[in-house]
Amino acid sequence: MTLRDLIERKRDGGHIEAAEWAEFARDLAAGTLPDYQVSAFLMAIYFRGLTDDETVALTEGMLRSGKTLELSHLKVRRVDKHSVGGVGDKVSIVLAPLVAACGVAVPMLSGRGLGHTGGTLDKLEAIPGFHTRLSLAQAASQVERVGCVIMGQTGEIAPADRTLYSMRDATATVESIPLIASSIMSKKLAEGLNGLVLDVKTGAGAFLQTLEDDLKLTRTMIALGALHDCPVVALLTDMDSPLGVACGNANEIVESVQSLKGGGPADLRELALRFGAEMLVLGGITGDQAEARAQLERAISSGKAIDKFREIVAAQGGDIAVCDDPALVLPAANLREDYPSPRDGIVQRVEPRAVGKGITAMGGGRTRMADTVDPSVGFQILAKPGDRVTRGQPLATILARDSDCAAAGRAALDATFVVGDGDVARRPLISHRVTGGGVEVLA
Amino acid sequence: MTLRDLIERKRDGGHIEAAEWAEFARDLAAGTLPDYQVSAFLMAIYFRGLTDDETVALTEGMLRSGKTLELSHLKVRRVDKHSVGGVGDKVSIVLAPLVAACGVAVPMLSGRGLGHTGGTLDKLEAIPGFHTRLSLAQAASQVERVGCVIMGQTGEIAPADRTLYSMRDATATVESIPLIASSIMSKKLAEGLNGLVLDVKTGAGAFLQTLEDDLKLTRTMIALGALHDCPVVALLTDMDSPLGVACGNANEIVESVQSLKGGGPADLRELALRFGAEMLVLGGITGDQAEARAQLERAISSGKAIDKFREIVAAQGGDIAVCDDPALVLPAANLREDYPSPRDGIVQRVEPRAVGKGITAMGGGRTRMADTVDPSVGFQILAKPGDRVTRGQPLATILARDSDCAAAGRAALDATFVVGDGDVARRPLISHRVTGGGVEVLA
Repeated sequence: MTLRDLIERKRDGGHIEAAEWAEFARDLAAGTLPDYQVSAFLMAIYFRGLTDDETVALTEGMLRSGKTLELSHLKVRRVDKHSVGGVGDKVSIVLAPLVAACGVAVPMLSGRGLGHTGGTLDKLEAIPGFHTRLSLAQAASQVERVGCVIMGQTGEIAPADRTLYSMRDATATVESIPLIASSIMSKKLAEGLNGLVLDVKTGAGAFLQTLEDDLKLTRTMIALGALHDCPVVALLTDMDSPLGVACGNANEIVESVQSLKGGGPADLRELALRFGAEMLVLGGITGDQAEARAQLERAISSGKAIDKFREIVAAQGGDIAVCDDPALVLPAANLREDYPSPRDGIVQRVEPRAVGKGITAMGGGRTRMADTVDPSVGFQILAKPGDRVTRGQPLATILARDSDCAAAGRAALDATFVVGDGDVARRPLISHRVTGGGVEVLA
Repeated sequence: MTLRDLIERKRDGGHIEAAEWAEFARDLAAGTLPDYQVSAFLMAIYFRGLTDDETVALTEGMLRSGKTLELSHLKVRRVDKHSVGGVGDKVSIVLAPLVAACGVAVPMLSGRGLGHTGGTLDKLEAIPGFHTRLSLAQAASQVERVGCVIMGQTGEIAPADRTLYSMRDATATVESIPLIASSIMSKKLAEGLNGLVLDVKTGAGAFLQTLEDDLKLTRTMIALGALHDCPVVALLTDMDSPLGVACGNANEIVESVQSLKGGGPADLRELALRFGAEMLVLGGITGDQAEARAQLERAISSGKAIDKFREIVAAQGGDIAVCDDPALVLPAANLREDYPSPRDGIVQRVEPRAVGKGITAMGGGRTRMADTVDPSVGFQILAKPGDRVTRGQPLATILARDSDCAAAGRAALDATFVVGDGDVARRPLISHRVTGGGVEVLA
């Protein structure tokens, strides 16, 4: 077997055997494959897809190319959450401590922002001192002590995936469902999970653009989880406008802290409670979603949730004062500027991709992995689709480094808001729930 | 414009503008593009194809990425020939001196063997001392003095194509008609030609497998030539079995010399005369094909053709004794072994790919560009499809280095010959003639 043969076979729609995928993953991890062959292979996969068997074999191969988190000696179950990525999506930052506070271990492997979507690690690193590069041994120890860790992929975890992933954005081969599913699951399964919840975004800011693709990705991941005794529950959630109010790294930490204390925007709180309830059930805390939700609400109101976040921040070297007075601790934008509505009317669109790209244009996101990120910049998005607004009323606040940065922010918001006259139907926050048992349409 | 954007646009079936192709070619030649992006782009082109406009722009860009052969001051016209590649295809080696002997300049840029097909340069380099790495200045000077040069692509000629070409085999992106056409024409047009003949092989040993693809490639190349006042005439010729008798590098030189002296196999001679006549007409020697053919026949019988070959060999440093007693000069195989027919019957198939792969297995061809080639090995293919043979009669002679090499040759011939009972219809040597005016079906 040479990679050239695999490229040609996949190009022509042929089947690649499990042993060949295993060898491919080993060679990827060993760094012995020419990257120009790997990228041609990725593009052939993009066009031809993978069969279910092939997706399983690639996932297995990538999982086995590295080490796994050994937590099976823990008395509590381990459940994680993955989001396909959105704008203003800080759910993980609220959810991880909240669920851990209720007694389920959350070994959370997160990612960085790329393109128009933000990344949990970038947001957490806005907290001075917070570090996300942990070894597996450090991670295991923290989960034992604190019940939760939020960290980045390391060279130990699925190194074959790491190689593929780093190449996919640069070669326009990201949007391939089998490649997405195998990449996520090879990492998540390395955490030794007892369950996984999946946030599949829908709408204009979502990564995938059709319900058919959403369900295909979800079902693929459910099937991959089932092979490793890891039940997967997916909720399809709205990303037709940004989630919550805060967009931008430091800014989203402020909102996450508010939410952990019982404040923050309603949509963020609702997603945290809904995903949290699924995680408590998967974690064996209770079999009843309503009871799980009540436990989560108590964890927030009692202060247990923010206390757990404080423990996590402390364990990962961050300044715990962020839990008390975020404004004092987090890097602040030099300029705050309101963005007024150009007319009276009803907000028709709040384009999430324009917001996400705006943050990147202001220096708060990446166009390539090597870019550094300014955590202070971003937006407060003050209006949602369907809101009635008057001329001059602020639709958003721009948080900028300087006047050029603010101008980039204004330009992005010009492309974000559409104010018109027609009524706008509000989209449901959660539209579908998908499990191994099937699809429930919720709204 | 970044290459990543072009990859994504092509992947999604979008159009790439002429200025973007020009920039792509310049960057390729400058070596500033990551090869993993180039290969992903090639695979996207493989799947999506190029529009006519895009093919023109890529060809132009690659042509202009390098220098061109300046021969417009010559009084005679320049005409070249290109073959899409076959097994036993030594037509160029006979044709170039033959046409040059009749007064048309032949600046011939040739290639090396790869996969199952042989290469003109490898064959010529079987002649001791013969070198094919010439600068454009050396090539121009030789064309002025001798009327012909047969050389390889240099760093000066279409360097952007050189980069793409070197990557295509390793990434399974060779079989793309717009990539083939632009690659060939960017080099051929750099020769400053007044005309080009094209040998498009058909049948089992051909590169393309359908008449539709043959005609598509041919029409693309005709259109590219027309934009540069370079009329292109294509003949579709049979490659359902090897051409001539000799297959293998040194071996094919012997047969070429025989043909230049009036001997050699009938199919080789016929192709040389037919392509030669087209070249003399394109070269303005005569407007009449029959008259052109008569001139070519006279050049052979008078000795002018072999004399011209002698001049070329001398100019390129080769041992001219090859023109008088090839066996004395060329590297000889240690072993010669007959391959007997297993039964009485009629030869049903002589599989050209099996022959070509056999030569490679014996060390006479390449699986990668860096491989070195043993010029002594090969086959004499003594039977053609439709021939009646008796059990034990030699179907071929194996020319081998040692007994392992001979065994590899026998194994290849086992996959080459099918002897059966049914009559076999002989395929026409030339089936179609294609020009800017349209397609003539000849048989």
